[in-house]
Amino acid sequence: MSPDRSLPIGVFDSGVGGLTVMRALMERLPLENLVYFGDTARVPYGIKSVATIEHFTGQITDFLLQRGVKMLIVACNTMAAVAGDVVRGKAGEMPVLDVIEAGARAAVARSATGAIGVIGTPTTINSNAYARRMHALDAGVRVYSQACPLFVPLVEEGWLDHPVTRMTAQEYLKPVLAEQVDSLVLGCTHYPLLKPLLMDVAGPGVHLVDSATTVAEQAAQTLARLDLANTGEHLAQARYHVTDIPLRFQTIGERFLGRSLGSIERVAW
Amino acid sequence: MSPDRSLPIGVFDSGVGGLTVMRALMERLPLENLVYFGDTARVPYGIKSVATIEHFTGQITDFLLQRGVKMLIVACNTMAAVAGDVVRGKAGEMPVLDVIEAGARAAVARSATGAIGVIGTPTTINSNAYARRMHALDAGVRVYSQACPLFVPLVEEGWLDHPVTRMTAQEYLKPVLAEQVDSLVLGCTHYPLLKPLLMDVAGPGVHLVDSATTVAEQAAQTLARLDLANTGEHLAQARYHVTDIPLRFQTIGERFLGRSLGSIERVAW
Repeated sequence: MSPDRSLPIGVFDSGVGGLTVMRALMERLPLENLVYFGDTARVPYGIKSVATIEHFTGQITDFLLQRGVKMLIVACNTMAAVAGDVVRGKAGEMPVLDVIEAGARAAVARSATGAIGVIGTPTTINSNAYARRMHALDAGVRVYSQACPLFVPLVEEGWLDHPVTRMTAQEYLKPVLAEQVDSLVLGCTHYPLLKPLLMDVAGPGVHLVDSATTVAEQAAQTLARLDLANTGEHLAQARYHVTDIPLRFQTIGERFLGRSLGSIERVAW
Repeated sequence: MSPDRSLPIGVFDSGVGGLTVMRALMERLPLENLVYFGDTARVPYGIKSVATIEHFTGQITDFLLQRGVKMLIVACNTMAAVAGDVVRGKAGEMPVLDVIEAGARAAVARSATGAIGVIGTPTTINSNAYARRMHALDAGVRVYSQACPLFVPLVEEGWLDHPVTRMTAQEYLKPVLAEQVDSLVLGCTHYPLLKPLLMDVAGPGVHLVDSATTVAEQAAQTLARLDLANTGEHLAQARYHVTDIPLRFQTIGERFLGRSLGSIERVAW
């Protein structure tokens, strides 16, 4: 029996960053119902151990499966890097997409020279998940990775086009650009907000791979292939669940989503 | 009945920052046993809501009280700002010190002009706890506050004397320095590591108040007054409990503590 097509796609992240994926899904799949889970009480995951991230990821997966979804999207690079198996183990037959798989595929397909840069949080980079995935797709690619721990706080501070952010980006990207990469994967959901600045620092010879838009494209293809796309008889809805509603949540969230947040429900854990 | 003098002083923080307080205590009170709790699985608190911070603070207080301590020190400005009452409610007769009380007292005692600057995380600054405490001590002081959300990630990145950090400090301190403050309270346990750079940016006319050393001084006075100081028949011990041991914990922790960390025990919650 095929699942109900009107069921939402479940999207989750350690905090607000995954809202860039929600935004890309709303633009690519406007008829789909969406449900978002952001673990804002325990964010950021990028500085925590693998065991802790696996534990938290399992809790969130259970929450979304209990509510009823037709597809899961891991919109957090850190979770995708170290806890993807936890999600797939719980999801069974249900399709599970993640930003690493999507970004890795897009980068390998796009790169002409095979020299690809990846930037992300320390945990994502140390997991080496992007490099492993890209090598599985094409053993010929050379991947150059760089952790950029200050980018998330800079984005959350709203310094999207600030001299401090520019100087930080120049320092972080220097070793990657020295390898003459022709593609640069933005391996963190916060980074699409830095796209204009990063394009400027990286220069015109480097194509930026945004895993938010690539995972939305992959979601569209998967829904079509499995005949799961919503028919759109009703207006599509987006719901948001978070574990904490901190002071600047609305402001930061709307910057990521590019539009107003609807009703936000706090999950007490 | 007076409590056992050999019982440790309990020190707690949302993560590693409170190790600057541990360091100051080891230097000021070398005969005291110390027990540290860092909630590294849920750090940082500075971006979370008051309700969530109160809940987490209560859990930590219970943990330390169950282990047996003779004094509690809230080494986290965010917890002291919004959840000090939770700790005092649970501690009963036991003395409870915190970095805000200590920093506020030291700043008011030291300032000649009564113009005092305070820097901290967004939650600490928005709580207005330093200004309220200083006004209760001296209604004549004028307090100028500035949230500096990028300082914690910059310290954890190890960019203690980096052009990016200098430019960030210049931007954050500009409005406070424009008020011609003669004292600047470092209202976050991470900031003592930026002391040399901040002294440089603030200039010789501004005295920096380090709440780690001031709370250690207050602890020494409180132990003497209550006749609770340890006699030092045995070598003093320091124990560390954390909720997560992330990748760079050892490196970052030892930078804060200024010496090797002993045995670290992970508390599973």
